[in-house]
Amino acid sequence: MTGWTAPVRDTLFVLTEILGVPDQQALHGYDGLDATTLDALCEGMGRFCEDVIAPLNRVADAQGCTRHADGSVTTPQGFPEAYAMLVEAGWQTLTLPEQYGGQGMPHVLGTVFEEYMNSACPGFMMYPGILPGATSTVMAAGSEHLKDTYLPKMVSGEWLATMALTEAHAGTDLGLMRTRAEPRGNGTYAVTGEKIFISGGEHDLTANIVHLVLARLPDAPAGSRGISLFLVPKVLPDGERNTLACAGIEHKMGLNGSATCAMHFDGATGWLVGEANAGLGAMFIMMNAARLGVGVQGLANAEHAYQRAVSYATERMQGRAAGPRSDPDEAADSLLVHPDVRRMLMDARAFTEGFRALVLWTAMQIDRAHGGDAEADALVGFLTPVIKAYGTDRGFETAVAMQQVFGGHGYVKEWGIEQIVRDARIGMIYEGANGVQAMDLVNRKVLREGGKTARLFFDLVEKAAYEAPDGVRRPLRDSLEDARLTLAWFLAHAGEDPDNAGAGAYAFMQMIGVLATGWMWAKMARWAEGRDDDFARAKSITARHYAERALPETAVLRRRVEAGSENLMALPAEAFARS
Amino acid sequence: MTGWTAPVRDTLFVLTEILGVPDQQALHGYDGLDATTLDALCEGMGRFCEDVIAPLNRVADAQGCTRHADGSVTTPQGFPEAYAMLVEAGWQTLTLPEQYGGQGMPHVLGTVFEEYMNSACPGFMMYPGILPGATSTVMAAGSEHLKDTYLPKMVSGEWLATMALTEAHAGTDLGLMRTRAEPRGNGTYAVTGEKIFISGGEHDLTANIVHLVLARLPDAPAGSRGISLFLVPKVLPDGERNTLACAGIEHKMGLNGSATCAMHFDGATGWLVGEANAGLGAMFIMMNAARLGVGVQGLANAEHAYQRAVSYATERMQGRAAGPRSDPDEAADSLLVHPDVRRMLMDARAFTEGFRALVLWTAMQIDRAHGGDAEADALVGFLTPVIKAYGTDRGFETAVAMQQVFGGHGYVKEWGIEQIVRDARIGMIYEGANGVQAMDLVNRKVLREGGKTARLFFDLVEKAAYEAPDGVRRPLRDSLEDARLTLAWFLAHAGEDPDNAGAGAYAFMQMIGVLATGWMWAKMARWAEGRDDDFARAKSITARHYAERALPETAVLRRRVEAGSENLMALPAEAFARS
Repeated sequence: MTGWTAPVRDTLFVLTEILGVPDQQALHGYDGLDATTLDALCEGMGRFCEDVIAPLNRVADAQGCTRHADGSVTTPQGFPEAYAMLVEAGWQTLTLPEQYGGQGMPHVLGTVFEEYMNSACPGFMMYPGILPGATSTVMAAGSEHLKDTYLPKMVSGEWLATMALTEAHAGTDLGLMRTRAEPRGNGTYAVTGEKIFISGGEHDLTANIVHLVLARLPDAPAGSRGISLFLVPKVLPDGERNTLACAGIEHKMGLNGSATCAMHFDGATGWLVGEANAGLGAMFIMMNAARLGVGVQGLANAEHAYQRAVSYATERMQGRAAGPRSDPDEAADSLLVHPDVRRMLMDARAFTEGFRALVLWTAMQIDRAHGGDAEADALVGFLTPVIKAYGTDRGFETAVAMQQVFGGHGYVKEWGIEQIVRDARIGMIYEGANGVQAMDLVNRKVLREGGKTARLFFDLVEKAAYEAPDGVRRPLRDSLEDARLTLAWFLAHAGEDPDNAGAGAYAFMQMIGVLATGWMWAKMARWAEGRDDDFARAKSITARHYAERALPETAVLRRRVEAGSENLMALPAEAFARS
Repeated sequence: MTGWTAPVRDTLFVLTEILGVPDQQALHGYDGLDATTLDALCEGMGRFCEDVIAPLNRVADAQGCTRHADGSVTTPQGFPEAYAMLVEAGWQTLTLPEQYGGQGMPHVLGTVFEEYMNSACPGFMMYPGILPGATSTVMAAGSEHLKDTYLPKMVSGEWLATMALTEAHAGTDLGLMRTRAEPRGNGTYAVTGEKIFISGGEHDLTANIVHLVLARLPDAPAGSRGISLFLVPKVLPDGERNTLACAGIEHKMGLNGSATCAMHFDGATGWLVGEANAGLGAMFIMMNAARLGVGVQGLANAEHAYQRAVSYATERMQGRAAGPRSDPDEAADSLLVHPDVRRMLMDARAFTEGFRALVLWTAMQIDRAHGGDAEADALVGFLTPVIKAYGTDRGFETAVAMQQVFGGHGYVKEWGIEQIVRDARIGMIYEGANGVQAMDLVNRKVLREGGKTARLFFDLVEKAAYEAPDGVRRPLRDSLEDARLTLAWFLAHAGEDPDNAGAGAYAFMQMIGVLATGWMWAKMARWAEGRDDDFARAKSITARHYAERALPETAVLRRRVEAGSENLMALPAEAFARS
């Protein structure tokens, strides 16, 4: 018993009933995903995560990673064995390119795998979780030589990878970075600098680690236009150890299973990936995959926390029902009789089930975009910052609410729920803090194109609202109206003051998150309408809960955007400190 | 540098300009608190907390408390010395009864002390923080013999105290408790049972610990009407060690400086406090003081986190302003140029300054209530669950938002901000989980009396709104209208379905929290109107921020209440688990 069961039934419901995956594979070049195959794959992933990965979670937190004097790092007990089993089973190769040994399946299946792995043990998932993004980057921008040398072993999982971006003084603002790469004249570069917060920078899971490092060439332009991407392996092709090392690991609030390393590159040998000074673009291939993955992590944290809270609430006998009693012969009823406990659990159901549908829908658009669908590509770009930021905000909030269900037992380590809260907190920060996601949404995905994709998205919501049952239709339309008016506000006022976009960005990101999740509930409520089984009834009730209690949030979010930036920016900088 | 400075200027502003404390002391039997004395007291408390208490905070977290094989407990390094300095300085005696050696000052000053201590080191404050409630309980319900024996040493701080309520199977539902007390015929009782989550149940700060223990007498009625309160000292008056011991300490998410003990009472000698079977009432004297204290802790966590985030945002150079640049000659500007960083910091200012005014206003009503003012007493009862629940919810949210300002550095232990998040989390749980506070508000403080005190409160808000500047008046009136309609909804619909009150309780508690904080901003905005100094201008800007961005929340909270309980309770209990 690890407190979590893979929610296979709900996954399959979304894949088959809502997304119609078995009917749609021809759209993106893969067929053969009939319902039976989907079922077997999801069951298989679920069982693997339950049996092999979930048992690692508690020890990962308690033990963390250890760096030794020689710079080597030991991961928590059981990690190397579990990683070997993962490579053996090959689940991480599902969506990787067939050309290099992967299975080439649609992205949507990789998303299911990400959810289950992150529920089971997010600290462990940090290691293989980077492979899809890292392989895509090398696929898209690497030379044939680099591809042939590195991709087969990255795809198989024999080697792992990192994204080495951040420096101590340069987090979000990568343009400030100082790591430099000197050409050696033989096609290789000497990479020198200090990187921090490098997940899996060193560990004992694989014999080699492929670092994808951002650095500056000599005479590169200042700022973010002078950044290039290099592949810098821990072990060179000739078997020599490269001149790079883990200089320390961070002591963090949570996610202790993941070795967060400070990395020291000391003239380490690297190869340019893509064009000189075009590193940021190449890195964004990886980053966009990672951002969706982090949003899925928020979902996974919430799902795990929800399941633990349901078990506790069902078994814990405390207080008496105001309405019908659960156990009339006992001195107390289960916590499930209390409306306020229901409120927290229903909020968690509504978020997890709605958001699961949203991330799987978006993953399917990635497959379509790969097949050349420009609208799908635009929608993925529009929804990526929302899924990252809204998913991790709500994932964390849900974990905190589920902790609340436990009362005092939620605050002690014994019950495992406080770990989920600590583990979930990082999602709001890494791969671009959520405020950065909100700015990306408003500036790059809305204002830059005059709101074109936003309107495309609104039309999809409108169609679903039109077809939804009464209890969902009206609240969804009201929220859609809030979102349309907010878009109009941005288009009218962003030019008036350079800070108007930034002042409302966070509220707009939240609004699109609320609306997009509600859109999925409209589809699910329509499916459930008129059906008479328990599963469908639960969907109808949860859809209505979302409509009653979550959708109205768009009204206050709209007010926040419309407040603009004037008063927000009015306080002089020196007035913030207390005296 | 501990990252926190006592916000003495803001405290004094509230006490003198908003509450007019120097003019009002005659109302509650204390005079002599002129502006100069207030200033000296607040400065003195602030300096003591900055110099003596704040340096304990990091080591308290890192080291925690240790229980030894003999049941003794060692607190973190420096705690015993700091506690001795506190007793020597006597700050904890400020509001305690003069009759037993205290200084008998108004409650409002004790609230200032609670805030500063909880910002400086909440884990340390857990030990002396219980003294006002514990002494009030013994004062109100104890025999003269108990008072004379225990109060002088509790008031001086020579002995500390505990509240021993919770048992492993009986948290909120105290009626289920099993600890029993057998009369010995000599006026003493033999108390036997297991209590958990006892803060300061054992430690090395004082020679004696006075446990206030809830237990059942033989043949006591079942449930909460059969509970009595006993005073059970660690060391008996004859110097013998009583038969009670710490059986273990909890490993918690945070607040590691506080020893959270499992206590084993093995026929321990105790004395009845108050009447037989009236223990819950006596305990509530303590509990109500503790609840306000926990709300203040939420404020204190938020204030500390705010100050750390302001320092970081001011010094960290990242990105460039969309509008005017902070450092045009540098490669980057300070984080304060970014509207989304401002949003988080302004939200934190608006909460901390508004809520500080609210808790000090409420504390002043406690003094009035002690002087016989029935309306003040009713308002304290109405606002206590709101201050506890809303204060800790927003305190935690603020700490989380301030952590976000640090980006990746917020997640590593080095910067100290993640500790505040972990420490703040308990406030939402202990002394009655926040959902329990919300039920207390709706059932006992509103429905039971037909909304009388709620209307009294609304009238106070209306008056302040009427006098407030334009930018605050209208949003505050809109929120007041939401609250009035919500009250009307409860009065009309609570009787229709026994779960309607519970289904909307949390949203109503939040609504009163938003409204009450806005009420204080109306008072402060009125004070600032027309004044032309930096302090007053900052108040006007922050009041407007609150009006623009926080007050509109009441609209969605009202919608949640009006949704009622039908759909919330519709899912069959067995449908919650995943399959």
